Amino acid sequence: MSNILGQLEEEKVFKDPVHRYIHVKDRLIWELVGTREFQRLRRIRQLGTTYVTFHGAEHTRFNHSLGVYEIMRRMISDFSGRPHWDESERLVCLVAALLHDIGHGPFSHSFEKVFHTDHEEWTRRIILGDTQINKVLKRVGEDFPQKVTDVIEKTYSNKLVVSLISSQIDADRMDYLQRDAYYTGVSYGHFDMERILRVMRPTEDQAVFKQSGMHAVEDYIMSRYQMYWQVYFHPVTRSAEVILSKILHRAKHLYQQNYQFKQEPTHFYSLFNEKLSLEDYLRLDEAIVMYYFQIWQEEGDRILSDLCVRFNDRKLFKYVECDPSKQMSDWPTLIDLFKQANIDPDYYLVIDSSSDLPYDFYRPGEEGEKIPIFLLTPENDLRELSRESDVVEAISGKKRTDHKLYFPLDVLNDETEYKEVKKKIKEILF
Amino acid sequence: MSNILGQLEEEKVFKDPVHRYIHVKDRLIWELVGTREFQRLRRIRQLGTTYVTFHGAEHTRFNHSLGVYEIMRRMISDFSGRPHWDESERLVCLVAALLHDIGHGPFSHSFEKVFHTDHEEWTRRIILGDTQINKVLKRVGEDFPQKVTDVIEKTYSNKLVVSLISSQIDADRMDYLQRDAYYTGVSYGHFDMERILRVMRPTEDQAVFKQSGMHAVEDYIMSRYQMYWQVYFHPVTRSAEVILSKILHRAKHLYQQNYQFKQEPTHFYSLFNEKLSLEDYLRLDEAIVMYYFQIWQEEGDRILSDLCVRFNDRKLFKYVECDPSKQMSDWPTLIDLFKQANIDPDYYLVIDSSSDLPYDFYRPGEEGEKIPIFLLTPENDLRELSRESDVVEAISGKKRTDHKLYFPLDVLNDETEYKEVKKKIKEILF
Amino acid sequence: MSNILGQLEEEKVFKDPVHRYIHVKDRLIWELVGTREFQRLRRIRQLGTTYVTFHGAEHTRFNHSLGVYEIMRRMISDFSGRPHWDESERLVCLVAALLHDIGHGPFSHSFEKVFHTDHEEWTRRIILGDTQINKVLKRVGEDFPQKVTDVIEKTYSNKLVVSLISSQIDADRMDYLQRDAYYTGVSYGHFDMERILRVMRPTEDQAVFKQSGMHAVEDYIMSRYQMYWQVYFHPVTRSAEVILSKILHRAKHLYQQNYQFKQEPTHFYSLFNEKLSLEDYLRLDEAIVMYYFQIWQEEGDRILSDLCVRFNDRKLFKYVECDPSKQMSDWPTLIDLFKQANIDPDYYLVIDSSSDLPYDFYRPGEEGEKIPIFLLTPENDLRELSRESDVVEAISGKKRTDHKLYFPLDVLNDETEYKEVKKKIKEILF
Amino acid sequence: MSNILGQLEEEKVFKDPVHRYIHVKDRLIWELVGTREFQRLRRIRQLGTTYVTFHGAEHTRFNHSLGVYEIMRRMISDFSGRPHWDESERLVCLVAALLHDIGHGPFSHSFEKVFHTDHEEWTRRIILGDTQINKVLKRVGEDFPQKVTDVIEKTYSNKLVVSLISSQIDADRMDYLQRDAYYTGVSYGHFDMERILRVMRPTEDQAVFKQSGMHAVEDYIMSRYQMYWQVYFHPVTRSAEVILSKILHRAKHLYQQNYQFKQEPTHFYSLFNEKLSLEDYLRLDEAIVMYYFQIWQEEGDRILSDLCVRFNDRKLFKYVECDPSKQMSDWPTLIDLFKQANIDPDYYLVIDSSSDLPYDFYRPGEEGEKIPIFLLTPENDLRELSRESDVVEAISGKKRTDHKLYFPLDVLNDETEYKEVKKKIKEILF
Repeated sequence: MSNILGQLEEEKVFKDPVHRYIHVKDRLIWELVGTREFQRLRRIRQLGTTYVTFHGAEHTRFNHSLGVYEIMRRMISDFSGRPHWDESERLVCLVAALLHDIGHGPFSHSFEKVFHTDHEEWTRRIILGDTQINKVLKRVGEDFPQKVTDVIEKTYSNKLVVSLISSQIDADRMDYLQRDAYYTGVSYGHFDMERILRVMRPTEDQAVFKQSGMHAVEDYIMSRYQMYWQVYFHPVTRSAEVILSKILHRAKHLYQQNYQFKQEPTHFYSLFNEKLSLEDYLRLDEAIVMYYFQIWQEEGDRILSDLCVRFNDRKLFKYVECDPSKQMSDWPTLIDLFKQANIDPDYYLVIDSSSDLPYDFYRPGEEGEKIPIFLLTPENDLRELSRESDVVEAISGKKRTDHKLYFPLDVLNDETEYKEVKKKIKEILF
Repeated sequence: MSNILGQLEEEKVFKDPVHRYIHVKDRLIWELVGTREFQRLRRIRQLGTTYVTFHGAEHTRFNHSLGVYEIMRRMISDFSGRPHWDESERLVCLVAALLHDIGHGPFSHSFEKVFHTDHEEWTRRIILGDTQINKVLKRVGEDFPQKVTDVIEKTYSNKLVVSLISSQIDADRMDYLQRDAYYTGVSYGHFDMERILRVMRPTEDQAVFKQSGMHAVEDYIMSRYQMYWQVYFHPVTRSAEVILSKILHRAKHLYQQNYQFKQEPTHFYSLFNEKLSLEDYLRLDEAIVMYYFQIWQEEGDRILSDLCVRFNDRKLFKYVECDPSKQMSDWPTLIDLFKQANIDPDYYLVIDSSSDLPYDFYRPGEEGEKIPIFLLTPENDLRELSRESDVVEAISGKKRTDHKLYFPLDVLNDETEYKEVKKKIKEILF
Repeated sequence: MSNILGQLEEEKVFKDPVHRYIHVKDRLIWELVGTREFQRLRRIRQLGTTYVTFHGAEHTRFNHSLGVYEIMRRMISDFSGRPHWDESERLVCLVAALLHDIGHGPFSHSFEKVFHTDHEEWTRRIILGDTQINKVLKRVGEDFPQKVTDVIEKTYSNKLVVSLISSQIDADRMDYLQRDAYYTGVSYGHFDMERILRVMRPTEDQAVFKQSGMHAVEDYIMSRYQMYWQVYFHPVTRSAEVILSKILHRAKHLYQQNYQFKQEPTHFYSLFNEKLSLEDYLRLDEAIVMYYFQIWQEEGDRILSDLCVRFNDRKLFKYVECDPSKQMSDWPTLIDLFKQANIDPDYYLVIDSSSDLPYDFYRPGEEGEKIPIFLLTPENDLRELSRESDVVEAISGKKRTDHKLYFPLDVLNDETEYKEVKKKIKEILF
Repeated sequence: MSNILGQLEEEKVFKDPVHRYIHVKDRLIWELVGTREFQRLRRIRQLGTTYVTFHGAEHTRFNHSLGVYEIMRRMISDFSGRPHWDESERLVCLVAALLHDIGHGPFSHSFEKVFHTDHEEWTRRIILGDTQINKVLKRVGEDFPQKVTDVIEKTYSNKLVVSLISSQIDADRMDYLQRDAYYTGVSYGHFDMERILRVMRPTEDQAVFKQSGMHAVEDYIMSRYQMYWQVYFHPVTRSAEVILSKILHRAKHLYQQNYQFKQEPTHFYSLFNEKLSLEDYLRLDEAIVMYYFQIWQEEGDRILSDLCVRFNDRKLFKYVECDPSKQMSDWPTLIDLFKQANIDPDYYLVIDSSSDLPYDFYRPGEEGEKIPIFLLTPENDLRELSRESDVVEAISGKKRTDHKLYFPLDVLNDETEYKEVKKKIKEILF
């Protein structure tokens, strides 16, 4: 078996539309890309249901993971020889970048909510458990898998290394903003990464940025802000997400009620029971989920089949803006009217709040885990970004919440039954 | 029900990374996009197995179909008011562009070879059969579905209309070259479509191009040439395609041998029997296929499970160039040696020739169906492109064939058994 | 003579790297582009001295003027048929867009400061005076030149028309942000113009923007903000601008002192006297100015020749940040020390403040002339942008001032004479 | 004085729209860029009169020279450590790349034809003569300027080094194709330079290209082909070039006739006498030339002033295709008719042939100086490109000639005098 710490005879490249080429010289990286756990990322889309809104967003986590690796590679090749940079951390950085999302499953957000899985835990289990990835990593050293896990879990002793992959401006975010912008086609998401990498400097605890590059960092923060509200929290995407969650809820509910499925959803059993083995988890991918969503279209349970048809054929829920404090007074009435109209409000009347979604705004000092971004002045002082930048200051620490109420307008517009009740519902909603 | 021939109250747009925006004003188009048969295209990748080579190429036929529609929309809006252009053909053009690929199934190329399906026939059946698409089209007129089919099948009386969607330079090709280049990230595939559209002129039989735009057309032809050999016929992609075909062959073979599958592959039965109903066909998408490929990994049949693992985990076959006339003399020996090494040559020794793949080079006059590209001189003469362009002339009519021999090098390199036989095999191959 | 209101037989296009193509169908536009006054814009760079910092920024006002015309063309072709839009204003809009910068001379900013010229006044004189442009415009109607002038001067009765070319988001700004970003190569300056044009709606007084497009407008504002501080106010560019102004000052001073130039600067006489005829003004272009700067390198006056060498050979002044309130106390000392070191402080010690430069921030209501940007809600209400957007709010109305002190560091570092005095100067400066 | 062979304390970058950033670490390069001879390249456009056709093409040789340097820098940093590569050639490579065009003057093509200057000779004189550049280079070593000259003149002993800057695929061509495409905005000119650099391998005599990258090289050749015919030989550009040459001819002729210019064209005297000193040559830039063209508009000589007005105001000559063998029979008649119409045929009837222009097609073996492009097979054989590539073969060695006859159509259409004669002329021409 060849030396896992060696270099490939000839550098390999992947053609990548975002970074042009992804360069691999380390045998270790090459072998990790070839494992079945890593190849599985090809079957999990990066942006879940976003493709229903932005049809270009069909790229997978495989795509993104290579990108994060490549950015990390460029970052630390610039660090080479600089103070505070320890060249012996090189491999753990590259591997952590490559594998940081390895624990993701299909439509993670909804699955985690409904089945209480946790992709970070799965990341650990995949890296430390009985997997091809683990075998490759162990060839570096018995403790190497644990080191990689520590970096991803932010418990690694070298905080600089952690900051490169998990901070408010890291290889992960820099890749996904650019990549998601590229595949959706939106014009946000552009920033001058080459300049950011050029002004990045290692310090003991984290990477900081020369003040002369502040505007590039500012631009990155704005890209991020725009991408969240224009792409990641798009209300149509959230409608698909709402339906997806409700499908999972319904299936679980039916299972718990001992409902007799036409075809046994064996892949879901351990999820329903929340006793998922590593092998079970690795079997889950979007093809498996979409397979069930298709066969469930023909299930006897009206709610399950309807929701699956909606998801597959993109017959989504519509929404109205919703002010929880105000609308809550109408809530009992609405639920009652839905029941009168024979529409189950547990599945067909859903409040979705974007503050549920991960949105890590910039509040230096406030929340323990958020490390602020620091600028390095020519005098070698560090200054926190939002103190230097008006525009970053403007959006710092301001939690923006957005509540929307989702419901099937097509059903409400169907006047063949419950016409009067539906009329009342619509009066409340609009 | 609203008037299907009307305009939407407000133009709808899809954000598209290739054409920036896709504009929809016609209610007809909007409703067609919303049908389940069209939404199904989201579950069928545009480039089949190409993603194993170019990881960016994960886009679907949904993506491409909207793009072809958009190009057609721009084309005919430029035609408006010009001689030979009949504005009453507008809708049939737009619809044919949108639906031209509607009959595609998952991994069409392999499925068609193994199960003798034909996506063009399925296009017809979907448009004319009992589908949501058919219902929408009939609201335009009882004979409208047939008209759309005629355009796609090139039997429509207005040959100009046919040429816009099926000729050597049409909306379909112009979209896929640019789109596939965008998603793979290769630098080929760029040409000046805006200029081509500007110099396009309707004539009675086809669209022609003002001579002043010859270089843009030339550039398009070169893009196409490069994309075929650099992307579409990439040997690694073909390796995945070879394995995919062999999986289908093996499954069919096992079925015919009354093999007892652990889980009945019900979705495949009518394929195996070549008695596919429209409903069966529409159920097939890549999620279904990938589902089976995953569960077949654990089938008892060693060949089926091995091939599925190879496909899913990207353990592809390697290849050598192969000159059929020369290597054919070694062929019986090779087959014999494979058998001696206990490697079934029917599945593990495969010649793939790229001339099997659709590659419609420019042979004006030679093959009935190929309409040459004509340039329109300032004096209103028509001149066939390859007579005017040296570079097009250079690649016209030259069928380039490429034969490769695929085999599992990992097995041949496994020295735990049949070491001597494998050594002999490798001597012949390399 | 052909009908000036007619269409060209065949649409003409200019290849443009920013807007792909610039389309001209109106004979009027075509003829205006062909006038000598418009062709003269080819000899005046869009960004003055910016090329010393960003070597790509060598594009001219000709380039930009065509771009503004093209954006206007797209804007009003979208307006066609909408309420509040008067199609009879079409031509005056296109012409005003094309000619809005026609009055600019070489290095306008410095020339205006030193010689008290005013490009807006020259715009009027070129359009209304005895020029080829005026002759072409009069063929439309005797009062047409005046109408064009009124639009450019914002006194035109139709305020909507004025807003398209002069407001906080207009054809002019949208072109220059994108164009200057393209030529400098900076990554700022991208925004989704296509979307902005799509959500633009005419009202009686100005164009407004559908609220759904707020983020594209926000992005445009941020682009503008970044371009100002990253490109337009770049300290190195300002150094070249400082030297340029001082050359002009010196030449004027020498003329007023009856200095005997080796070659008479005839092109400058009427500038020095501030009695510039239209013909004199039109003769001025960058070639003329650069010609004199070159021959002045060999003038006997040490200051004039030194400054010209500095400008031509890019031996620029260095700068320090300067807090006027604080440094003012050192000011008399500094001036005195400069004199002791035989460095004339009138020419070699210069405070440049960026607030001198046009920077029209967003202060709705505060300054009479700034019309705020309004968003149009689905309920047809208008809301001022900064009330809806946190990031715009953050930069609204905040005048950012930046003072820099420029001086020739090379001279101060030259220790062959006045070593001690120079040492003291540097102690104060750094 | 700091060590010229040292590195800058901090790497400097230039923002470049084509290569993103241009990186300078060597003090030598930084100092060369700062010389007056190099800064002078800012006043000489890269594409001469092309801006009259493609308004974006206003970029200068300064721009391009930095680009060639940057490509060279990337090339040889890839070579580092490879066989045949001598790291001690690094600096001479970078400097030769940076300075290869230093001898160009304004509108070189026309000036060289009319005044028999030779930019290659001037390159030598600038590098070896009494210049700032020479002083900087000598600090490297007394013989260093000569070495740089040898590389640029292709007489350097290390043929590999020569091939990087002067061969059929070199840093110079790779920059200008991309750069000219970027500034003109045409879609040709794109090729995958990153891939070409990746497959480039040093050999003893020249750089060769791994066969796996053949298609990228093919694409480069096609870009070049398209750029020549679409951009560099554009007939409108050639019209401006024709007029420019005739201005120079006329001015020289008048000088030789002892014509009394209103203002003495002192900058041209040594050109007219063909006795140009280095100092005279360095004074020449486009500003100087354009200055004279402007003042000559008001010269008494009708031909000189008319041609200058035409050049400045873009009143160009029109053209017809011309078959010399055929039209030559009409030539005496045409000349006679022009004289009858009082239009001097020496200045107003011009045949321009594109074969006059440098167009170095691919004829391996035929012309001594053209080194063919070689592909390196996996077996380490070298194969000449056109033997491997159909499309390159198609355009190899075929000299394409294009003759156009230019004349002032406006004058011929002016019916106020010589109406009948002009009618006859037009009958012959069209």
